[in-house]
Parts: sequence; C-alpha cells; structure tokens
Amino acid sequence: MSPDSAATGGARIAWIRSRMPLLAETRRRFAEKRPFAGLRIGMSLHLEPKTAVLLETLAAGGAEIVGTGNHGSTQDDVVAALRARGLTLHGRRDDTLEQHAANLEAVLDARPDILLDNGADLAAGVVRRGMAGRIRGGTEETTSGAFRLRDELAGSVPFPVLVINDSPLKAIGENLHAVGQSAVESFQRITNLMIPGRRFVVIGYGWCGRGVARYLRALGGQVAVAEVDEIKAFEAALDGYLVDDLPELLPWAQAVITATGAPGVLPGSLLPLLRTGTVLGNIGHFPFEIDTAALAEQAVSRQQLDEGLESFTMPDGRELVLIAEGRMFNLAGRAPKGNSIASMDLGFLLQARSLERVALAPESLPAGAQPVPDDINRQIARRMVEVLRTGE
Amino acid sequence: MSPDSAATGGARIAWIRSRMPLLAETRRRFAEKRPFAGLRIGMSLHLEPKTAVLLETLAAGGAEIVGTGNHGSTQDDVVAALRARGLTLHGRRDDTLEQHAANLEAVLDARPDILLDNGADLAAGVVRRGMAGRIRGGTEETTSGAFRLRDELAGSVPFPVLVINDSPLKAIGENLHAVGQSAVESFQRITNLMIPGRRFVVIGYGWCGRGVARYLRALGGQVAVAEVDEIKAFEAALDGYLVDDLPELLPWAQAVITATGAPGVLPGSLLPLLRTGTVLGNIGHFPFEIDTAALAEQAVSRQQLDEGLESFTMPDGRELVLIAEGRMFNLAGRAPKGNSIASMDLGFLLQARSLERVALAPESLPAGAQPVPDDINRQIARRMVEVLRTGE
Amino acid sequence: MSPDSAATGGARIAWIRSRMPLLAETRRRFAEKRPFAGLRIGMSLHLEPKTAVLLETLAAGGAEIVGTGNHGSTQDDVVAALRARGLTLHGRRDDTLEQHAANLEAVLDARPDILLDNGADLAAGVVRRGMAGRIRGGTEETTSGAFRLRDELAGSVPFPVLVINDSPLKAIGENLHAVGQSAVESFQRITNLMIPGRRFVVIGYGWCGRGVARYLRALGGQVAVAEVDEIKAFEAALDGYLVDDLPELLPWAQAVITATGAPGVLPGSLLPLLRTGTVLGNIGHFPFEIDTAALAEQAVSRQQLDEGLESFTMPDGRELVLIAEGRMFNLAGRAPKGNSIASMDLGFLLQARSLERVALAPESLPAGAQPVPDDINRQIARRMVEVLRTGE
Amino acid sequence: MSPDSAATGGARIAWIRSRMPLLAETRRRFAEKRPFAGLRIGMSLHLEPKTAVLLETLAAGGAEIVGTGNHGSTQDDVVAALRARGLTLHGRRDDTLEQHAANLEAVLDARPDILLDNGADLAAGVVRRGMAGRIRGGTEETTSGAFRLRDELAGSVPFPVLVINDSPLKAIGENLHAVGQSAVESFQRITNLMIPGRRFVVIGYGWCGRGVARYLRALGGQVAVAEVDEIKAFEAALDGYLVDDLPELLPWAQAVITATGAPGVLPGSLLPLLRTGTVLGNIGHFPFEIDTAALAEQAVSRQQLDEGLESFTMPDGRELVLIAEGRMFNLAGRAPKGNSIASMDLGFLLQARSLERVALAPESLPAGAQPVPDDINRQIARRMVEVLRTGE
Repeated sequence: MSPDSAATGGARIAWIRSRMPLLAETRRRFAEKRPFAGLRIGMSLHLEPKTAVLLETLAAGGAEIVGTGNHGSTQDDVVAALRARGLTLHGRRDDTLEQHAANLEAVLDARPDILLDNGADLAAGVVRRGMAGRIRGGTEETTSGAFRLRDELAGSVPFPVLVINDSPLKAIGENLHAVGQSAVESFQRITNLMIPGRRFVVIGYGWCGRGVARYLRALGGQVAVAEVDEIKAFEAALDGYLVDDLPELLPWAQAVITATGAPGVLPGSLLPLLRTGTVLGNIGHFPFEIDTAALAEQAVSRQQLDEGLESFTMPDGRELVLIAEGRMFNLAGRAPKGNSIASMDLGFLLQARSLERVALAPESLPAGAQPVPDDINRQIARRMVEVLRTGE
Repeated sequence: MSPDSAATGGARIAWIRSRMPLLAETRRRFAEKRPFAGLRIGMSLHLEPKTAVLLETLAAGGAEIVGTGNHGSTQDDVVAALRARGLTLHGRRDDTLEQHAANLEAVLDARPDILLDNGADLAAGVVRRGMAGRIRGGTEETTSGAFRLRDELAGSVPFPVLVINDSPLKAIGENLHAVGQSAVESFQRITNLMIPGRRFVVIGYGWCGRGVARYLRALGGQVAVAEVDEIKAFEAALDGYLVDDLPELLPWAQAVITATGAPGVLPGSLLPLLRTGTVLGNIGHFPFEIDTAALAEQAVSRQQLDEGLESFTMPDGRELVLIAEGRMFNLAGRAPKGNSIASMDLGFLLQARSLERVALAPESLPAGAQPVPDDINRQIARRMVEVLRTGE
Repeated sequence: MSPDSAATGGARIAWIRSRMPLLAETRRRFAEKRPFAGLRIGMSLHLEPKTAVLLETLAAGGAEIVGTGNHGSTQDDVVAALRARGLTLHGRRDDTLEQHAANLEAVLDARPDILLDNGADLAAGVVRRGMAGRIRGGTEETTSGAFRLRDELAGSVPFPVLVINDSPLKAIGENLHAVGQSAVESFQRITNLMIPGRRFVVIGYGWCGRGVARYLRALGGQVAVAEVDEIKAFEAALDGYLVDDLPELLPWAQAVITATGAPGVLPGSLLPLLRTGTVLGNIGHFPFEIDTAALAEQAVSRQQLDEGLESFTMPDGRELVLIAEGRMFNLAGRAPKGNSIASMDLGFLLQARSLERVALAPESLPAGAQPVPDDINRQIARRMVEVLRTGE
Repeated sequence: MSPDSAATGGARIAWIRSRMPLLAETRRRFAEKRPFAGLRIGMSLHLEPKTAVLLETLAAGGAEIVGTGNHGSTQDDVVAALRARGLTLHGRRDDTLEQHAANLEAVLDARPDILLDNGADLAAGVVRRGMAGRIRGGTEETTSGAFRLRDELAGSVPFPVLVINDSPLKAIGENLHAVGQSAVESFQRITNLMIPGRRFVVIGYGWCGRGVARYLRALGGQVAVAEVDEIKAFEAALDGYLVDDLPELLPWAQAVITATGAPGVLPGSLLPLLRTGTVLGNIGHFPFEIDTAALAEQAVSRQQLDEGLESFTMPDGRELVLIAEGRMFNLAGRAPKGNSIASMDLGFLLQARSLERVALAPESLPAGAQPVPDDINRQIARRMVEVLRTGE
C-alpha cells in the first residue's frame, strides 16, 4: 500500500471524523479513562471511513485492534491509513473468498478478548475453535447475525453479545431516516429520473418502507403502499398514502421499491402486471425481495443501460428496468456514499458504548444475544437530540 | 322537547349518518342478523349526532337502548330525535350534577344486560348495587375508565369489558390524526391567529402530541417539542422538530400546547418564563395539564376576550392568553364540531363490533378490562383502508 | 346600543389590537405626526374588530372618521365600542338595503376630504353629487371597486385612488396564504369531514386556488387542479397536483372548491358528472362560481343539514352537498373568524400608509385608480418579514 | 474512438431516449414532415446523452448536424455513438482551449443555415466572419448568451434568435424544480451529510433559490433565506422560512447555498462570521457567487477531503468546507447526472420546436434575441401536463 493511498484515506477519514461529534466526545473520554486498556478487540465490519473513526475511538480507549472487513467492500486507502496508525488489519478489496476466510482466522489467531462482530462470523469461529470461554463479550452489528446467535449458536455462546440493530435508535435513526433519505438520493443518482409526479409503489411499511415512502413523497412523488399487516396498512392509509393489494397497484406503478426484509415479495408471477418502463429497486438488506431470477428467465433479452441500471425486454415487448441487480440500491451505482455520516455516528456510538459496557461490566450482562442496555440507549438519545439542536 | 327540535336533530344526524360508511354497513348486517335481539344495552356516552348513529346501529341489531349523556354536553335536539325513534334517554344539557347522577341510576334501574360505558360510571354502579352478576359484559370508551376498572374496581367486575381506547386503531386514527387535525382547526377557529411562522411549543410527543406537532407544521408553524422520555424526544428531533427542555423553549414560544395526559406539565413555576402575548392551550383529555389555578393566582387581572379566549395580566405587565380555561380546546369555543366524522365512524365501529362480540360470545372473553380482540381490530383496519381508498 | 354591547365589542377589539403589531407601530407614529389633522375620512368597509383597529389608527393620526359598513355584516358591538370613542358610524346589522343606501349618503353629507372606499360606492357618490373636486384622494379596498373606477367612472375621478388589492403583498399575504388557511379551517369547521385521504378538485390555480390547494394537501388531502391557462396548469402539475380537464376530474372528486373569480366555472351541465355525496364550496370573492341556480333547478328536493350545509337530491338519487349557498365559505357557517389577524394587519397597514400618502402628498399621485406606490409596498414587506421573524 | 465506446454511449443514449416522451413524439412527426430537409444546423451545446436525443430528433427532421460541445465536458462515448449515426461532431473531452476554438470555427466552416447556440459563440462567429446574412435564424440556450446578443451583438444580428432560457417553462420546470431536486441529491451525494435538522442558509429567492429552499425543507432541513428584494423576501417569510439579513444568518448556518446569479454574494468580508465546519456551495450558473479567491487568501491551509470537497483552515482555527470549488455543484463530484431527464425532455422540446419555427417561418419572427413564441410555450405546457398525468 503506497503512502499516497494512506494520505488519501486519511483525508477522507478526516472529513468523516470532523462530522462525528458523538464519537469525538466519547473518544476524548476514552483517551482519559482507557476502558479497553490491556484488551484486544477482534473486529469484522465493513471497512470504510466511518468504521475507521469507530476503530480510532476504540484504540483511543486503549484497545488493541485486530480486524478484517467484509468480503469485497474493503476500501484499501482507508486500511492503509489505519495501518499507519498501528492497527492490525487483514485483507484488501480484491480478496478471494478463501482469502477472506483466512483473514477471519487471522483475527481469531490473535486471541481477542472482545468481539466486534458482523453476521456472527467471529462468534461462530470462537465456538468452533473452543475459544469461547476466554471471550469477555462482544457486540453484533446485524439482525442476521443476531438471528444466527439465537438459532445456530443458541446455548453455545457463554458470553454476552449486545445486538446493535435491536436498539430503537437504530430503527428510527437509521432504518427510518437514513435509509429513506439515501434511497431518494440514490434513486436520482442512479436513474436520473424526476421524482415529482412519478408513481411509486413501496412494498412494506416497516421502518425502512415508511422512511422511503415519506421521503419520496416529500420530494413530490406519488406514493402507494402495499403492506400485508392490516394495522400497518391502516397507518399508511391515514398517513395519506394510496394503500391497496399489490396486484391492484402494480399496473399503476412507474417504479416499485421493495422494503420488507422478506424474500420474493415482488414475485415472478406478478411481473406481467407491470407497465413498460417500470423501474424496480430494492432497499431491503437482502437481495432476495425482487425475484430477479424469474425476471431474467422471463426476459427475451437484457441490456446494461448505465452503471447500476439494466433493461429487460419481456416477450410482449415491455421493458422492465432493474436497479443494482436487486441489491440494496442505496449502496449501488457509481460512487455511493451510503447512509449519512450522522446516522453512522449514532450507530457507532452504540457500538462504542456497548463495547465499553462489555469491557467494564461483563458480569452485569447475561450470556448470549441481547439488546443494548436501556440506559445506554437513553443516554445516547439525549446526546443526539443535543447534537441535532446545536450542531455540536 | 318540541317536534321542531327533533327535526333539527334529525337533519344533523342525517348528515353525519351519510358520512359514516363503516357503521352503515354494520347497521345493514345487524338488521339482518339481530345480534342484540332481546338484550338491553345501558349506555353512558356524550350525546351528539355521531353517538346517535352508533345508537341507531345498535338498535338496528335488536338492542333496546336505555342511556344518558355526559354531564353538561348533551345536545337536546339530538336526544329529541332519538326519543322519537323509540330510544329511552335520560337527561338534558342543563342538568345539575344531582340530576346527572339520577340519570345514571335510571339507566341501572332498567336492568341492562350489556354496558356501553364511559369513565366506568355504569360498571361502578352495578358493582355497588350488587347487580354485576347479571351483566353479560360491556365496553369502556375511555382510558380513565379503564384505569378505574383496573384499580378501584379490580377483581369486582365478573364480566368482560372491552376497552375501546386501548385499540391501536384509536391511537392512530383518533389520537394521532383526528385530534391533530381538529387542534389546528380549533386553534384558528378560536384565536383567529395565523399559523405560518408562529412558534409553537408542543409538550408531549405521544400519539396526540405528535399529531398536533405534525399538523401545525404542515400548515407552516414553527414547532418545538418538549418530551421527558428520551426515545420519544429522539424521534421528535429526527422528525425535524426543535427539541429542548421546557424552560429553554418557553421564552421562545408564542403558543404552548399541552398533550401529555399528565397533570401540571405547564406548572405555575414556569409561567414567568413566557413572553407577553403567549397563547396557552391544552389538547389532552383532562383539564389539568396547564396549572390554571396558579395562572389565576399569579395574575393581577383577567379579561374575557372572546368565546373560549381569556387574557391574564401578570404583575410584570405581561399578558398570557388562555384558551378554553385549559380544557381540551378542540371541543371548545363557539360551535365546535369535535373530531372528524370519519374518525368517529372508526371509533364507533370498534364499539359496535365489540358489543356484538360481548353479546354473542361472552364466554370467549375473560372477566375484567381487556383490549379489543385482535381479529376485530384487523377486520376494521382492512375495511377502513378500503374506505379511504374508494370513499365508500 | 347598550353599554354592555360596547364592552363586549371593546374586549374583542382589544384582542385583535394586541395582535396587530404593524398597525400598532404606525398608530404610535400617527399619534406623534398627526398626518390627518383637520381632515375628515369618509369610509365604507366591513365593520368588524379588525377594521376597528384600522379606524382607531386613523383617528390617532388626527382624522375625523365618518363611515358605514357593508350591507348585512356590520357587527353592532364593535360599532358601539367605536362610537363610545367618538367615531361617527352609521348603520347596523339588520339595516335594509334602503337604510344602507341612506347610510352611504350620510357619509357623503359629512363632506369628507378623503375616501376609504369599498366597491367604489363613495367614489360613485361624489361623482354623482359633483363633489369630486373637493376630494383630496382615497383608497379602494377591492378589485371590483377598481374595475368600476377604471370602467364606469373612468375619466370622472379627478383625484388619486390607491387600489389596495393591486398590491403584491395582498396577493401573497392574503389571497395565497390567509385565504388558503382559512379555507381548510372553514371546510373542517362547517362540514366536520376529515381532510386526509379526501379527494379535492380545486378549480383555478391563481393566488387563491394555489393557496387552497397547498394547504389542503399539507393537511393530507388528495388534490387535483383544473385550470384553463396552460402555463398555470403546468405549474400545478410540477407542483405535484393531478391536473386534468374538469369533466375528467369531477367523477373522481369527493369535494370541489372553486377559486377563479369567474362566473359559472362549475356549470349546471357538469353536475351530472359528480358522484353522490360530493361537497361543493366556493372560496372566490363572488357567489357566482358554482351555478347554484342550476343545482336548485335540477334537484328534486333539498334539505338544510346544518348551519352552512345543505343537501340537494338529484333525480337519479345522488346527493350533492353545498356549503354556504355558494358564497365564499371562509366567511360562512356559525361564528366564522375570517382571514387571520396578521393578514389583516398587513392589509390594513397598506390602507393606513396609502391614506397617509394621499393626505400628505396628493400632488405626487396621478388622478384615478392606481396601485399602491412601490416604496410603500417595500417598506411594509420589510417590516412584515421582521414581525414574522421576531413576533413583534 | 473504439466501437466499444460507441456501444457504451449508445446504451446510455437508449436509456435517456426511452424516458423522453416529449421528444419522441416530435421525432415521429419530424420524420414524417421533414421540416429541416436541406438545412444544415450548426450547434454548440454540452454533448451528453440528453443532447444526443435532441440531435437525433433534429436529424430525423431532415437536418444535417455539424457541431461541437462545451469546453471540457464532452462525453466521448456519446460523440462516438452519434458519429456512428452520421452526425459531424468536432472535439473531445480533453481538448485544449485552442482546440475548442478550432472546433467552433470548423462548425462555421460548414456554412450552417441555422444555429443551435450556447453563449452566443456561433452567433458572434458568423457576425465576425460577415456570414450573418446567410443565416435563417437560430436558438440560444442560455441567459448569458442572450445578454451577449442584446449587448455586444445588439444590432448586428439580422436573423431571429429564440432564447430558450427566457421561456417560463424553463424557469418553472428547470430552475425551480429540476435544479432544486438535483441540488438536494448532489448535496447528499457529495458531502454524505444528513439533511434533516441541518441549518441551511439559501442566498437568493429567485426560481433557483426557491427550488433549493423548497426541496431542502421537504427533506427535513432547517432553511433560512437571505434576499435583498423586499417582495421576494416577504414571499419567503410567508412560505415559512426564517428570513433575515445575511450577516445575521451566517453565524447560525451549518451550510450556505448561493443561488442568485450575481457575483460575490458571499463576499470574503463575511467569511469570519461563519462557524467552524460550515459547508459552502453554489447552485447558480456562474462560479462567482462565493468569493473563493478571498477564501483561499484568508485560509492558512487547505486540504482536499474527497472528490468535490475541500477544507480551508482559517487563521482562527475554523474549518470551512467548499463544494466543487464554488462551481454549480449539481454538476460536480463523482459521476453527476445533472438535471432530471424529464426536465431536459422539456427544455429540448423547446429547442426542437423553436428550431422548427425558425426553419419553417423565419419571416414570422423579428431579427435579434427574442423569447420563445407564446403558442409554442402553451402547446408544450399542455403536453407536459399530460405526460405528468399519464406517464406517457
């Protein structure tokens, strides 16, 4: 990794760091109190500038960091900058799956005391290796990791794991607001289509779906909602959206956005209902909400239109346009920035404070997956309100 | 009561009835199925045209209705119209408290099988009289009645009481939307003040508070929120409101609206922080949120400005303006209409369907206060979505 | 007129006065400079509390006021309060048309120097009487009066008349915002219908129409616009409204609001397109936009539902509901408050400053109807911005 | 230029073409009527996929196209695709200024009959060369070109030039809506900052400024407006924005967006008022609204943070962040898409219809710069309303 790369990464981290006041304050406190002194944190998390600021914060608290990124998304300039500051990070963007697996093993080889986990990859590793007894505790970033801890790993994890995504602050701050905002930004960035007057069908009125619906409408879109839960559908209708069954809505749509967390909510069987030109996109975490396999199978031809944008010609001549192959499109297209810095400042403060609790008071926490303690949520909520009010 | 009065009441009921499609459909079904055949419903509920349509609906289902209104709010022309249709209703607008108590006793004297209750007045009466054993069950409209059933009357009510206000449909349809809308309508109707640009402090970000905040902002108001629960405060801040502690917000306010359900949330001790001309109003159910006694005590003089609007001159010369003596102001001023017809169509369908369940399947319900059964909520939610979509 | 009446009127004026900071400041300046010393102002204007504050302001500037109200709308308690302060006012609410004509003559008999006119009634009188030569100048409140001055009275008015309604501040402050806000308030106040989800057709996208459309949508209404001018229709479409020809929109509507200033824009020939239950209302100045004569003629019966609300049964069984007989409905129903105090503070400051210009510098103004001088508009605009920012 | 490049450009054009229904319809009509048969159009316009669809449309009408792009923005793959279809296009992205000047001369060498001009570069050339007499007429895309025609070239252009940017459709469709939308998209895309709760100062409340203010607020931003014209400032205040003098607003701001069209509206002298971290961006056409020279001079150091984002450290330690060097930031950063396809479909239909009028009825048009004829505006407005309603 060239020094130039470290410089570029450092500049990008500097911008992000300057806009993360929540972590900044905790970093100062950590530097004074050193809650992680003598502890090694093993981490596995998407490696980009926002994560870098979290890692710096933990390091400021005395932690030794040994970690790796997610497969295929590691930003090499950011890693270079962090290595220059003494962190031990394995992996690079073009790693193969085998190399990625080896990176995870390298993290475990370092014998961490605490896990900063993602998809429960590290937790599964320590269980497999019989190392679980030496782990003080950890955090898990994702809902899918939490599911794995409560299912496949249930009973075999003797240490506490605080699940960040179970915090109400994440649901509100990230799923409702940050995802909703980045969805409207990304829809424009990738398609260049005008939102006012456009007819959108949002599938799902959970936190993500209502964020997407709210911000699309705020920009002038005509938004309809399809939702199978009657109470949520009722909320959507009173919030002023057109609410109907999906087969009724699809012929009206000019764009369809899935946001449910469930597979196949736009199934192949309904694709014939769509009018020509309809744009399909998914904002849910997993790429399975739109049945893209059925779309590809039904199509007589397909053409890449632009980055993140592909057209499918159907046997009857209709064109359907798919964004980002059905993957979460606020992370797709050329140069996506992802969720806003402020929303990640919030999410990563949940991480930092949860890891601090694990480090200092593991005995106060039961074993296994569990929500972030309520007092942490409330302290952070209070501080975030202050930041939103004062900008500091 | 003159025939003319019955005609006026009848015309007003006709308008309301024509705009209650949910009850209309149930009334047709009741007329066919007669779920209340042979049953006497004792009722105690605010007697105005919307209630009249509920009572007609129950009567269409075969119920014999014996009832009375709330103290001081009975609309005599509506009562006249209902009496002309064979309902037994006690009381009139200008009843004294003694007469109102006698009206409640008269309802109990009629030995009802089912109670349509409000504030648990009838339930307390049957317990006191030792008549509880003959009651099949009932409904309770209010949260305060539910509280009384679960506290003072706990254990002594052997029949099921479905609490309408515990339904999520009421929270969303009535507290969030209908109260919010009628609050902005009533603020303008009573004060004649412009909303755009005006600085409002809303105290409380529960269902009512967020409805008030949402609709005030929609009309162009500058809205700040004071909320003691950190998670709700966080929601408000991300929803874009200025959120701060009440003592910080009050000097900024031009109007303060309480919406918490708790007493004294605008205490006398904070009144000195208000700038001259600030308008004070309460939208919560009880008239105790603004400490009006302290206001009156601190003031050196007071003057009635217009109906529902009174000015208090403070020792330092500031003028504070109180709407409707601190009572729920969407029911105050000259000629208030209250919550929208549609929201009461929803709320009263919850009543009608809950009473039907009590009549037909009391054995399916445990004794005591309990929420409306989930299947009823979901069926009504689905139907309301349809009405909002089609207008029918 | 009883003393009590003067007290009631005085209290109502006191509230309004306390909320008119623009006039308050000018009143203080007038009291010092006395621009109207020795001058008699003849006035003809709707007599209610806001007008009272204007008249007080002129009187503070040294003017002798001799005036009368509009036919049928004079508020007797307000007149009583003003008489108690020495103003000479003719007429009362229940005056006949003959008495109203006599009141206007009585104003002219007093030989005014300056006219504060409304519908050009006083201007026409001075021309008819040959008194025009002694008039220094005046103001005209309405567009219809301006039309009369430029048409019927063209060339015969040798003095300047500043037309208040031609000011851009009136178009923006009153027609766009104040009328729009009072329209949504009044629709709820009179009909008690829920706005969210309701399908409104607004006819006309001038200042009034876009205000009504904007505020209805802000409260959650589904709003469509019919507009014959292509450029305005284009604006409406890009502002996010459904825009179509009226015959296409009417079968979709649940409510139709006319706001064009032109007669018969909802003609009898289109009434058969309306679905049953549709509510019809007019917000335009004149009561001729809805063809109410055709409606009455086509109907087989009609019934008064509530104050300001009448139902018409059509031969095919449909019910159409008319608000306020097709008159401007933000001034209809029980206890209407009219436009917000702030909007009238603005409009009446235009009056006061224009009359001051006429009094002090009549030679700077050409003869005949003309807009308010640009420097007055700009000074008032700057001050109103300040009031909106500071509340003072 | 490789065949691959033409294929990539062709695919990108295909997507854009499929979303330009206004031009599609005109292209079909042109193909039938051939209004440009035998005519050569000399063009100078930013060469990207949307322009390509305009050029295809003109070619379908029989025009021979000879043209060049703007300096530095030509997209080579688009040019390759157009050349493959027989258009004569000069220039490439990395041309020097000398090469760009030579490209313009090459267009003139081809002896065009009609000019599709931009900045009046071609008009100035034909005047200089004495070729003006042979030109039938033309169009000018920009306001700055129109200014040049009316100033430097006044009297020397004997042919009609229809100024596209003078059309009300451009002001509304592009400046108000499209620029406003792409500004909020680009702000997020470049800075990754959250909009809700952020405090924005928009300088200027013309078409662009009110679009930016409207869409920033729609996404949850706190927006203040600084505007020197009193009437526009009054509009902004009633539209609900905080309006104040710039020196009062700057210390409050977290971001400042210039949108006036005038130079130096954020002058160096006011930079000391900004708090640390404030983000500065310009959305006006010219890069002179923020005094970037003063910013650079006052700063003690500067650092590139990310693409389109630079930090300046001031002597007192404050950091100011500049987007895109003060250039119009909706065209800056990595991979900008510019205004929405629909807005350019509209703008380019104005071009196509204006060029058709020049080709077919030049005698109906006076010499010199002039607005698009009213009948063309109205026909296009009507059609755009239809497209917004039906999506076709």
